[in-house]
Amino acid sequence: MNFNITKSHKTFDGETAFCSHSSQVTKTDMKFSYFMPKSNKVERIILWLSGLTCTEENFITKAGAQKHLANSNTMIVCPDTSPRGLSLPNEHDSYDFGSGAGFYLNATTPGYCDHYRMYDYVIDELIPMLSSAFSTTSFSITGHSMGGHGALVLGLRNPNLFTSISAFSPIVNPSKVPWGQKAFTGYLGPDENLWNQYDACHLVESGHKHPNKILIEQGLSDEFFEPQLKTKRFEEACIQSKQELKVNYRDGYDHSYYFIASFIEDHLNHLN
Amino acid sequence: MNFNITKSHKTFDGETAFCSHSSQVTKTDMKFSYFMPKSNKVERIILWLSGLTCTEENFITKAGAQKHLANSNTMIVCPDTSPRGLSLPNEHDSYDFGSGAGFYLNATTPGYCDHYRMYDYVIDELIPMLSSAFSTTSFSITGHSMGGHGALVLGLRNPNLFTSISAFSPIVNPSKVPWGQKAFTGYLGPDENLWNQYDACHLVESGHKHPNKILIEQGLSDEFFEPQLKTKRFEEACIQSKQELKVNYRDGYDHSYYFIASFIEDHLNHLN
Repeated sequence: MNFNITKSHKTFDGETAFCSHSSQVTKTDMKFSYFMPKSNKVERIILWLSGLTCTEENFITKAGAQKHLANSNTMIVCPDTSPRGLSLPNEHDSYDFGSGAGFYLNATTPGYCDHYRMYDYVIDELIPMLSSAFSTTSFSITGHSMGGHGALVLGLRNPNLFTSISAFSPIVNPSKVPWGQKAFTGYLGPDENLWNQYDACHLVESGHKHPNKILIEQGLSDEFFEPQLKTKRFEEACIQSKQELKVNYRDGYDHSYYFIASFIEDHLNHLN
Repeated sequence: MNFNITKSHKTFDGETAFCSHSSQVTKTDMKFSYFMPKSNKVERIILWLSGLTCTEENFITKAGAQKHLANSNTMIVCPDTSPRGLSLPNEHDSYDFGSGAGFYLNATTPGYCDHYRMYDYVIDELIPMLSSAFSTTSFSITGHSMGGHGALVLGLRNPNLFTSISAFSPIVNPSKVPWGQKAFTGYLGPDENLWNQYDACHLVESGHKHPNKILIEQGLSDEFFEPQLKTKRFEEACIQSKQELKVNYRDGYDHSYYFIASFIEDHLNHLN
């Protein structure tokens, strides 16, 4: 294996592990966590992409996924949300840009272009490494908020790589909302044509398609629903492009991991 | 209600809430979290007492208890582990004494005796407040590590108040291990007679008894098992005193919340 296990905790008779490795793509160490079910057989790997401010730890600690996967042959892997250990301009100044906010894209702006390449990191480095270490080519992808955006973008651009796609509270149209505009400007510069390849609404509108139904969970008491997430725009794009989609709008639920924990079982079933 | 709900998150159709109130006992604000099942009916309240360094947040975020209680009429309540906002001598110098380390006792040493009264706080203030707010007199008690010690001590000393007792990785004989000796010296001074009333092994040996079987979960890869927890001493004391007890020793499990999450369902069933 090309990664080190730094911590390991027996969980539901399986293993929750924290790992690090030296990334060729980001030119930094990168971290991820995983849960290996007790069978120790891996027929599928689900990738979980986390949201702003998160690390490899949030999901694996808070979502309760282990219980649901314990008796399966499905592993879940949760990468960190950005490179770490750098000191790029403005990298650590705000929660929604730079460290903890990699946005699952390949940056082109000075400084960032050398390291903030989370799209290539996941597709070209993490997945091949996992595929080799655990002898499977079967992947699905999901995530939350910024990570929901990542799951939709990576999934739609790689429909043969990912069997299923789901997302919790995804940023579906980042080019048109404050979080995305700030990040895309910082990582990609002002040319909006570059932005489009990382915008799930634009991808669907321009013909990207996944053969299986995409599942989205969205809380209706989520403070970011209206200003940042814009779920209905993705629904409209999918209807026009005949992309199968199911969105569950959940009354009273917010943007937190309590929401994710409440519905993760349905998503794991969808992704499995 | 005599407390304020500071945050609330819909969870499994119930409510995870964070609360604060002004405590007469500790003369500070005190915090606790709870999960209210979706029925909004409370037939029983389980108290969860957390371990060293924890706050009211750890258990309710990491243990996955909400899923198991969602369809019950049982609420779980998790108080913070000490008073906060004070500046007593040495209070914030180490992880195992002072803030985050109240040990569920009534301190007698100068400074601490005015505030570090977690035993009275739980028994004489929190429980009556919950009883009044949620119209139930039915309580069970559990906890982890220092909080497992708290659950055993409070449960054994109040067998009519708590229907059932359980503990994860409890400090069963604090008078005889480093964590307990440091805390008891700091909070109670050198008189070991004062320590005995907060030592589960001593309580059982001196005739304290609970009418129902006590359930203990202990990981065998827990780094604190041998030096601090001493589970077997409590087993021996219970055998001699004919206190019903079941200890599950779990191969490969450590001291973490991954261990707790793995077995919390069994404990909630026991406590319900």
